[in-house]
Amino acid sequence: MSRRLRVAVLGCGSVGSQVVRLLQEQAGDLAARVGAPVDLVGVAVRRLDAPREVEIADGLLTTDAAALVARDDVDLVVEVIGGIEPARTLILSALENGASVVTANKALLAEDGPTLFEAAEKAGRDLYYEASVAGAIPILRPLRESLAGDTVTRVLGIVNGTTNFILDKMDSSGAGFTEALEEAQGLGYAEADPTADVEGFDAAAKAAILASLAFHSRVTASDVHREGITEVTAADVQSAKDMGSVVKLLAICELRPGKDGESSVAVRVHPAMIPRSHPLASVREAFNAVFVESEAAGQLMFYGPGAGGAPTASAVLGDLVTVARNVLADKRGAGESAYADRAVLPMGETVTRYHVAIDVDDKAGVLATVAHAFAEHGVSIQTVRQEGRDDDAQLVVVSHSATDAQLAATVEHLRGLDIVREVTSVMRVEGGDE
Amino acid sequence: MSRRLRVAVLGCGSVGSQVVRLLQEQAGDLAARVGAPVDLVGVAVRRLDAPREVEIADGLLTTDAAALVARDDVDLVVEVIGGIEPARTLILSALENGASVVTANKALLAEDGPTLFEAAEKAGRDLYYEASVAGAIPILRPLRESLAGDTVTRVLGIVNGTTNFILDKMDSSGAGFTEALEEAQGLGYAEADPTADVEGFDAAAKAAILASLAFHSRVTASDVHREGITEVTAADVQSAKDMGSVVKLLAICELRPGKDGESSVAVRVHPAMIPRSHPLASVREAFNAVFVESEAAGQLMFYGPGAGGAPTASAVLGDLVTVARNVLADKRGAGESAYADRAVLPMGETVTRYHVAIDVDDKAGVLATVAHAFAEHGVSIQTVRQEGRDDDAQLVVVSHSATDAQLAATVEHLRGLDIVREVTSVMRVEGGDE
Repeated sequence: MSRRLRVAVLGCGSVGSQVVRLLQEQAGDLAARVGAPVDLVGVAVRRLDAPREVEIADGLLTTDAAALVARDDVDLVVEVIGGIEPARTLILSALENGASVVTANKALLAEDGPTLFEAAEKAGRDLYYEASVAGAIPILRPLRESLAGDTVTRVLGIVNGTTNFILDKMDSSGAGFTEALEEAQGLGYAEADPTADVEGFDAAAKAAILASLAFHSRVTASDVHREGITEVTAADVQSAKDMGSVVKLLAICELRPGKDGESSVAVRVHPAMIPRSHPLASVREAFNAVFVESEAAGQLMFYGPGAGGAPTASAVLGDLVTVARNVLADKRGAGESAYADRAVLPMGETVTRYHVAIDVDDKAGVLATVAHAFAEHGVSIQTVRQEGRDDDAQLVVVSHSATDAQLAATVEHLRGLDIVREVTSVMRVEGGDE
Repeated sequence: MSRRLRVAVLGCGSVGSQVVRLLQEQAGDLAARVGAPVDLVGVAVRRLDAPREVEIADGLLTTDAAALVARDDVDLVVEVIGGIEPARTLILSALENGASVVTANKALLAEDGPTLFEAAEKAGRDLYYEASVAGAIPILRPLRESLAGDTVTRVLGIVNGTTNFILDKMDSSGAGFTEALEEAQGLGYAEADPTADVEGFDAAAKAAILASLAFHSRVTASDVHREGITEVTAADVQSAKDMGSVVKLLAICELRPGKDGESSVAVRVHPAMIPRSHPLASVREAFNAVFVESEAAGQLMFYGPGAGGAPTASAVLGDLVTVARNVLADKRGAGESAYADRAVLPMGETVTRYHVAIDVDDKAGVLATVAHAFAEHGVSIQTVRQEGRDDDAQLVVVSHSATDAQLAATVEHLRGLDIVREVTSVMRVEGGDE
């Protein structure tokens, strides 16, 4: 008896329609690679008569997603609806019914991943989610498998194309945030309500997923310190340029050694200045890239399109082939790996570096006063650049590494000094020596 | 009864010693990730008393590799000896004895991969080889698994660090090949006998492995058209600069559509000019990178250290964890995928573009004569740049796409023209529009 693989797709938007297209167009190759024909048995949509980018055979479309995942002849469910509900209920139902699941749902995984992983474990089925981070770029599989014999120490990711496009425009044209956002919206790189992107929610979800895999620990979106790019100014971008750097919104996941051999994890999303010589600095427009540092492998970078229907569908189909092979062999792939169970450091204890630009009175002793403020909080200074102007001066200070709490207290201290007219730019510095 | 995973390592040079170190230092993490303790049961070396970079417990070292792989208590053999024999015999013996194998041996895989894959298939065991291409950079697993639902159309790789270091030096300092090679040798980036690197043998082996995986077909080293970098001159590098390009030694694997729906494969290694805006252009020093184009995912790049003991060992250990999990679950990972069985195009039929620089007599009608030579061979010209000098002139011509045979015939034709004093530079152009 020849086995066939039966697939249901939940959602037929920009990603879902491309998944369906690839399932149809690549049927021959998929069968050869999986080892059995892959049949599309249903596509759940909100409206049957909505316009779609793909032809779907009669009888496959349904508005009853719950009934589709409850069918006992479905081997594999692809969830590309997005959002928390009904996606979570549908995925849990699919697993309970014995189907394996491939999803692109970063928000759900970052909010409630453990519930899904436990359900998959209990059901003895696979839950794969490569498409949830950085679109087509293979990054979860390398973290989970290729680097499984190594110790990942840091992940720096440009994982949101919208904000990278905006920051790249600000860098190349000198535009302010609002102007660059409008251009991104005009070109379709930003949505009408850009909150999820520009406030860093999207990147924070991806940071949680990356940190969980990299450090074999459970990290959820609520563990991620998050700052968006809405307050990045043209002056910040210019100040970065002046020091040979560029501003990027980074998802940063770090392993921090602790006192008693216990290491912890720092996970955050914020704009940061990185040197132009850093491989991430040359990631332009809406591209994504993830830079990984590990003890044995050294520095790796993964680069490509971080979004879009077809690229995301490519990642979904890659997972689908792996999961389908597992279904045929009646095996599971590796499940959640959270054995290390590391604690997540509060942002205040996270070690970073600050770039601070200050307008000060142009008189003798100013630098000494400022340097004293840094020293008082235990922050040592790496470089100071002083620029005189008519009757005032600008100081640009880059610190050495200190805790974020020390650095923030230093900035508060500076704001209260008589000789400081204004703190004009505060931004963290990443990607260089500490 | 608690299962333990028993590993034998063949070879204890720069890679082997790092594999042993990681097996020892990461034992706790490996056990958690594999699901069982991983025991090192033997290390085969040539000389017991050679100095080593790692401490190895008494009784583990042996000079009898054949006896080590014949032991019936070994689950997994790591082969990091390199070369064709005795590596091939040892790997085949290990598989026959029921062990799975992880190897970094590009030369053997490129020469005789099918023999190994068939032996693994017959034995029902795994043969993994991520470390054979581009050191620590996860590239084989992404090609084999992440892109399994997509159609890869092109792979462009900088997969030899020695030649990239040499070409980068030539680019940054204006040095000639010999001078740059000597610097690379002084810094340990090139061996005393640099033939395998500078003549492209190493890159050609990797190209064969990449093409086999990307196009689901058997491609061996003998199928790869190979040209090294020994004839790249400072003038070539300058000529590339003048057109905003850089010279790189590329491993190029392309899917070429055929007349009757049958596609074929073109695989070659040669120096080429690529635009400085191409992501591969910024790969400096001895780093490696692999640029992948696929129908749905678009353009991806994987970047990192392409060699070195620890990075290569990281890739070996990643494979080891996957294979060890398979051993415990009594299953195999995906084996060879050669179902597409595509033919390899001869180099003459491969489509490429040429950059040709010619010293010509500085007189009227020269450009027409040269243009006529291109037209006669059916090659259309994209750009011509003419530079007058004292009594002669230099023409720099970049062609549109044509077969290599057409382009080569054009260059021969040019060499025979009276008005041509010398063809000073001929190089293929890649990474741009056709």
